[in-house]
Amino acid sequence: MSDFGRNFLPGPTDVHPEVLAAQLTPMFSHRSKRMQEILAAMQPSLQECFGTAQPVFLSTSSATGLIEGAVRSGVRQRVLVATGGYFGEYFAKTAEHCGKQALRIPVEPGRAITAEQLAAALDTHKVDAVAVVHSESSTGALADIPALAKVVRAKSDVLFLVDGVTSVGAMPILMDAWGVDFYCTGSQKAMALPPGLGLGAASERFVARASQQRDAGFYLSIARMVSIARQNLPIWTPAVSLIMALECQLARIARDGGWPIRWARHRAMLGTVERWITARGDVKLLAPEGARSPAISSVLLPDGADPAGLIRTLEERGYLVGGALDPSHGPLFRIGHMGDLTPAHLEGLLAVVSELLG
Amino acid sequence: MSDFGRNFLPGPTDVHPEVLAAQLTPMFSHRSKRMQEILAAMQPSLQECFGTAQPVFLSTSSATGLIEGAVRSGVRQRVLVATGGYFGEYFAKTAEHCGKQALRIPVEPGRAITAEQLAAALDTHKVDAVAVVHSESSTGALADIPALAKVVRAKSDVLFLVDGVTSVGAMPILMDAWGVDFYCTGSQKAMALPPGLGLGAASERFVARASQQRDAGFYLSIARMVSIARQNLPIWTPAVSLIMALECQLARIARDGGWPIRWARHRAMLGTVERWITARGDVKLLAPEGARSPAISSVLLPDGADPAGLIRTLEERGYLVGGALDPSHGPLFRIGHMGDLTPAHLEGLLAVVSELLG
Repeated sequence: MSDFGRNFLPGPTDVHPEVLAAQLTPMFSHRSKRMQEILAAMQPSLQECFGTAQPVFLSTSSATGLIEGAVRSGVRQRVLVATGGYFGEYFAKTAEHCGKQALRIPVEPGRAITAEQLAAALDTHKVDAVAVVHSESSTGALADIPALAKVVRAKSDVLFLVDGVTSVGAMPILMDAWGVDFYCTGSQKAMALPPGLGLGAASERFVARASQQRDAGFYLSIARMVSIARQNLPIWTPAVSLIMALECQLARIARDGGWPIRWARHRAMLGTVERWITARGDVKLLAPEGARSPAISSVLLPDGADPAGLIRTLEERGYLVGGALDPSHGPLFRIGHMGDLTPAHLEGLLAVVSELLG
Repeated sequence: MSDFGRNFLPGPTDVHPEVLAAQLTPMFSHRSKRMQEILAAMQPSLQECFGTAQPVFLSTSSATGLIEGAVRSGVRQRVLVATGGYFGEYFAKTAEHCGKQALRIPVEPGRAITAEQLAAALDTHKVDAVAVVHSESSTGALADIPALAKVVRAKSDVLFLVDGVTSVGAMPILMDAWGVDFYCTGSQKAMALPPGLGLGAASERFVARASQQRDAGFYLSIARMVSIARQNLPIWTPAVSLIMALECQLARIARDGGWPIRWARHRAMLGTVERWITARGDVKLLAPEGARSPAISSVLLPDGADPAGLIRTLEERGYLVGGALDPSHGPLFRIGHMGDLTPAHLEGLLAVVSELLG
């Protein structure tokens, strides 16, 4: 347990011992008043986290399940997907496996689609939804969701679906104000819970379309998730121990000063990485300044460097970091700096990396 | 913790403190060799549990998710569903929500479909799959899967899908020998883990069909689950803490003498309920002798009795039992006698119920 603060995986993130311990709660009925009260009590904090007045729903699935739900419930025929990394491509593939057409707008790895690129694409192609990854976990690129949402909102009848897997909880999200129709994340990212819960929210516009989709299914039906969340009931038999961990984590976040403090800490961690990069000079970040994720940094090593060897040596020293998900992104390793990690933990890691890089 | 042995819910079942504690394992990479070794080491025990030489796959979902996967991957157009309770109807509804046709063969609550009924239905109607709930958790009825499988196997090109949610782990399952094409359960039943993991297996015949389904999706794709399980890799970011709980539970089962001992204990618990019913005379079981689930008993109280009041009073005394899922089944309460519970725990509950019934 004393090892907390050495797991910099892009997920599953380090889980605080107090949150892990919440999983020791003995099982009880998921159909009980007790569960209903727990779910109701968590809503205000979750809604602040997503920036929405809509109910935040919990799915017993990874975020991938919610992305599939977004596709089945929100895409009629054709979705435009900005692909600048592994998870953009993932969204497009998911759509195709669900029998939808995916129109890919590729962007350079490390970059996110711009409002101009999106506007041009929407003028040329007819789609009924646009999908963007907010914080691309494979590259560390951060998309400008408010600007992109404006472009989507200029078209009637096009829904805007955002994969917020490593942005939700790590930075302010203003889903309603921006005009986003679907946002989701997974428990094992900035929330710093064990994996197994998806969290999401959908606009009224989204739910209206979802209710008319004929093949949305049952388990991943977003209309159903929203309707059940509105009653503060759990959907199916939920992952009870993970809900107890979430309850504990939200209480900890409130105790530590609330979401704005947590968001500021994530921003500070990106600053720590940026200062380290500048001080060294021989490494750089794949994503350009001003468009970087507060939760994940993809660190590009000099040509000929051996990121796999570095990752292995770090592991021997007790530190976990991530590797590249796509070899074409270059010789890089990925630092997940999110959840309950602090700048001090991160400085500990970077000192060891510096020592190893020489 | 000392309260272990008083939760007789039909799920989530009581989880042994040692198994709960396995969730305290700090997070590590799901793409690591360590995870691959854990998954590989669990296969032989899981395969014995399902009675199959095929890989047992783990899904980060409840069993409902796997049922939807079975429908999407295994039903082309039309599935015949035996409905004698809540979960039979659930299967049919899931199929419809996935855009398939469900032909319902209703049976009396407490009864399971017979081989003769199934043969007659299959001679009259053209379907490409048959779905049966092995142990109907709403009534306690146990279907004769080997006999039903024989009937299905007599038809070429019809798949046999079995909801084993409260049978797998509670009794011997011989999936391959019986000729079943799909079996699944959820972690929070006879396995006695927290909810959030689905466990399933599929025949080669099933996988061949699944590979040709165009709309099977991504998250719940059974062909994908089988292919990834064959490599002992996890699918998506899995529920790591629940996998650690499963690893611990399989070690406990082995230490306690293996699956046959566990199955015998479940059979003994049904015997305990049956002897109690016989001794009292004023209560009965909804399911007839010889066709009762080893994991769940639906106890029918005398007309005019108040099961809701009984359940409430039991809860005040520290005991959890389940209520009816369908009011038309009569004045009943449901005892889940599975997982790590023992006949001695059950006798403790029944003594209190006897006291309350007078």
